[in-house]
Amino acid sequence: MDHNLLLKWTTQRQLSIPTLLLKHYSELGLKENELVALLHVQSFIEDGDGFPTPELLSERMTLSMNDCAQMLGQLIRKGFLTLDKKWDEQGILFEYYTLEPLWIRLIQLLKGEQINSEEQQKESNEG
Amino acid sequence: MDHNLLLKWTTQRQLSIPTLLLKHYSELGLKENELVALLHVQSFIEDGDGFPTPELLSERMTLSMNDCAQMLGQLIRKGFLTLDKKWDEQGILFEYYTLEPLWIRLIQLLKGEQINSEEQQKESNEG
Amino acid sequence: MDHNLLLKWTTQRQLSIPTLLLKHYSELGLKENELVALLHVQSFIEDGDGFPTPELLSERMTLSMNDCAQMLGQLIRKGFLTLDKKWDEQGILFEYYTLEPLWIRLIQLLKGEQINSEEQQKESNEG
Amino acid sequence: MDHNLLLKWTTQRQLSIPTLLLKHYSELGLKENELVALLHVQSFIEDGDGFPTPELLSERMTLSMNDCAQMLGQLIRKGFLTLDKKWDEQGILFEYYTLEPLWIRLIQLLKGEQINSEEQQKESNEG
Repeated sequence: MDHNLLLKWTTQRQLSIPTLLLKHYSELGLKENELVALLHVQSFIEDGDGFPTPELLSERMTLSMNDCAQMLGQLIRKGFLTLDKKWDEQGILFEYYTLEPLWIRLIQLLKGEQINSEEQQKESNEG
Repeated sequence: MDHNLLLKWTTQRQLSIPTLLLKHYSELGLKENELVALLHVQSFIEDGDGFPTPELLSERMTLSMNDCAQMLGQLIRKGFLTLDKKWDEQGILFEYYTLEPLWIRLIQLLKGEQINSEEQQKESNEG
Repeated sequence: MDHNLLLKWTTQRQLSIPTLLLKHYSELGLKENELVALLHVQSFIEDGDGFPTPELLSERMTLSMNDCAQMLGQLIRKGFLTLDKKWDEQGILFEYYTLEPLWIRLIQLLKGEQINSEEQQKESNEG
Repeated sequence: MDHNLLLKWTTQRQLSIPTLLLKHYSELGLKENELVALLHVQSFIEDGDGFPTPELLSERMTLSMNDCAQMLGQLIRKGFLTLDKKWDEQGILFEYYTLEPLWIRLIQLLKGEQINSEEQQKESNEG
């Protein structure tokens, strides 16, 4: 591996995925396509681009620009992604995505599972 | 968030994905389904299970066990995944997956792109 | 970079550190030496070794085995690390470290800061 | 855990450390203090601040501003950190750190170890 490629590899970022997301996304009603789209959005956010366009997404995915646009809309409607607005330092309004609703729903799912397992535990103890 | 859930969240593992994979998997010929399957395999390996069954995969994915089995076979045939064998300390032969071929192909792709961009650079300088 | 080294690099694990820990460890009363020791312990745990010895730690750190032993003891006494016990499948009792108390203390610190900043917010609104 | 704190935790970044760095920094001649300083610099870079001041570092470390300034200077002289210059889009020259020399030295160390172990292998085969 030559020098430039070596530096490209060693200085690249890593995207960290919570394994609880990997274990439970299908229970949340997410398909693999949608999970990957969310990972792309997260990766763009971490690179400083909070509002990646469907075009940018489709360059990285096997989906067309139209399919990416539809999927983003669907992720918002299904409550996994939110589009927020903010004023920057120059007083310009800009939009950005956040994955906050995804994390809240994942936590809620885990909370429900925990309550269920505690109740089963209790029942089997009482039974 | 109660105590147990808090600990579950803070002590969970993170799966690190090289962003170069995220940017280039589609150029390698991988679909989103296949990328996620590879991430699951990697996650199982890091948890100490080097040979996750199609059944285990299908519990986490939106695909059936049969579809997972077919996809694993295809990932091996297409050269993204290898099934290796090793003797453990008790002299028992066991099989395990490695994603080594995936990384090698990704590096080769990047190498090719670099050579192309260097040649274009050279041509535009000479032109 | 030759083939074996390339594979060694691309297949290595990444240790994920929550940036909130990086930002607040000194407020928790941790020194850099101690932070690194905790990262080593976490890394051993993720590699399947839940109870790394002072000797193993000192091989990776610039500290002697004695200093590592003392530091582990101090991290336990100061409440950042716990030594737990478990029976494995063969009925053998084994000890393992967990960083749970570290995460609980970090969350408590963040909770305190949030309450403070909310109170200041309130006061400045009322003032 | 209340809602805001929960979001703060789940949306924080993770800093990924290659475990090969964790295993070999002391062989490279880095002390724990210096390793943590490099992790802070990396974390600032990933947050979009390529040139963190000694003051910013000392707010996160247990070291004074002067000690942080000295350590940054030493990390540059010892060849683990480089200060580079670039023009931004507005034609303003700005300075930024890169950890490229650290990764190059780590790779060189691993290369050396591999050659040594291959030679020993060869000798023991020939012997």
